Amino acid sequence: MSMIVIKVGGGKSLNVDAVVADVARLWQEGQRLILVHGGAETTNEVAEALGHPPQFVTSESGYVSRRTDRRTLEIFEMVYCGLLNKMWVEKFQQAGVNAVGLSGLDGRIFQGRRKERLRVRINGRRLVLRDDWTGTVEQVNTELLGLLLDSGYLPVLTPPGASDKGEAINVDGDRAAAQVAAAFHAQALVILSDVPGLLRDFPDESSLIREIPRAKADDFMQFAQGRMKKKVMGAVEAVSQGVGRVIFADGRVESPVSRALAGAGTQIR
Amino acid sequence: MSMIVIKVGGGKSLNVDAVVADVARLWQEGQRLILVHGGAETTNEVAEALGHPPQFVTSESGYVSRRTDRRTLEIFEMVYCGLLNKMWVEKFQQAGVNAVGLSGLDGRIFQGRRKERLRVRINGRRLVLRDDWTGTVEQVNTELLGLLLDSGYLPVLTPPGASDKGEAINVDGDRAAAQVAAAFHAQALVILSDVPGLLRDFPDESSLIREIPRAKADDFMQFAQGRMKKKVMGAVEAVSQGVGRVIFADGRVESPVSRALAGAGTQIR
Repeated sequence: MSMIVIKVGGGKSLNVDAVVADVARLWQEGQRLILVHGGAETTNEVAEALGHPPQFVTSESGYVSRRTDRRTLEIFEMVYCGLLNKMWVEKFQQAGVNAVGLSGLDGRIFQGRRKERLRVRINGRRLVLRDDWTGTVEQVNTELLGLLLDSGYLPVLTPPGASDKGEAINVDGDRAAAQVAAAFHAQALVILSDVPGLLRDFPDESSLIREIPRAKADDFMQFAQGRMKKKVMGAVEAVSQGVGRVIFADGRVESPVSRALAGAGTQIR
Repeated sequence: MSMIVIKVGGGKSLNVDAVVADVARLWQEGQRLILVHGGAETTNEVAEALGHPPQFVTSESGYVSRRTDRRTLEIFEMVYCGLLNKMWVEKFQQAGVNAVGLSGLDGRIFQGRRKERLRVRINGRRLVLRDDWTGTVEQVNTELLGLLLDSGYLPVLTPPGASDKGEAINVDGDRAAAQVAAAFHAQALVILSDVPGLLRDFPDESSLIREIPRAKADDFMQFAQGRMKKKVMGAVEAVSQGVGRVIFADGRVESPVSRALAGAGTQIR
């Protein structure tokens, strides 16, 4: 049966109740679905409140990621797997959807490789970090997810993932969602955030790019700013691995998933 | 196949690595197992650090429980479902056991009733609380747990549970574990904490009660102090519902589960 994977960011302007209502309606109509959520903004707040403020590093290839020492990993798990995962599950349960919230560590749903030596720049200085728990998803446990779906449970997934040694690793949620969509040959991967889609002149919302042909996805990387870079990279990976289409759409509006499926946002196909 | 349910407290003196090694060995020998964990002590610390210190209330029947307003419920979920549940899962994954960590809210594993009006005493004053998320487990989703076990996944469970309306509710971990053991007609429920078992003269560890006949379990309630009260209540419920035996044993030692199964601690049968 056809599958839709939905990725929701952790931004404060996301319309969580609208996402839940829309997903619940699609689910109750019989649509096979998996939801993947983030939580970066809340993690930053809790880390500040607990006296362990967030730090960001830039990789040699120019990607920005969270410095994830052991204490940061714990705070990350408290927010992603505790506060936010259970918030989503509770809202789905209240909407009559029997959701099951899992991290990528559980059952090794997101299995990958830990970067044991992370070469980064912090404020321009080059460093090699060895006590960092960051990694990349290489494999998705479709067996466990299929088992849940076949029994009527909606999987609600979140980082971290598991390294091949079973360590928790901070993995990028957008790229993890892209891997889930690819593993299930999903008909669509819907990526909701606090912008209407990919913008030609960020942050000018009127410069929305409506459609990107699959073959030209790489060329559009130039328009991706900051966090959008990994989203576009995940999208390019997903379409190249057989996902029907990837949609970047607005998560602040009513019926955000249905609108995206009906053509809103940036469609990559 | 015979089932063992293990409940571990959240106390700092619990020997977590010894529990993991012992459970992993039993699991790899083919023993069907479910682990349920707590987290009260760490929740108190995090609540203090976040400026929302814990408060405890006494019910009309004399039981002490955590005042669970909405902010407390969030902190509770951060610690139980985030920090501690993922700590247990990570340690099991590193020990080669494919653990899946779930709260009682997920798939409504612990379904129960929210106490919409909680009659309590706080510092001697009588109050009725209406904004409290506390409840009691009435039903266990054995279908979902059986599905995971049959596919080779070790369930690692933790409160909260789900009310019939899908709200998250703070449920007692010991009594939830007793309900899981009863639902599976487990051969044993092993309750590990930071004492050697039920003590006739708490905290004198030499006053350990070695055995309690099933029929006399109620009489031993008089020896239960503070937190132990709910543990004994859970044990009485479990044996009366067909669990082979309930063991209160020391979680601070090496091979704590094997020792308990071999006769250590307080055996209720």
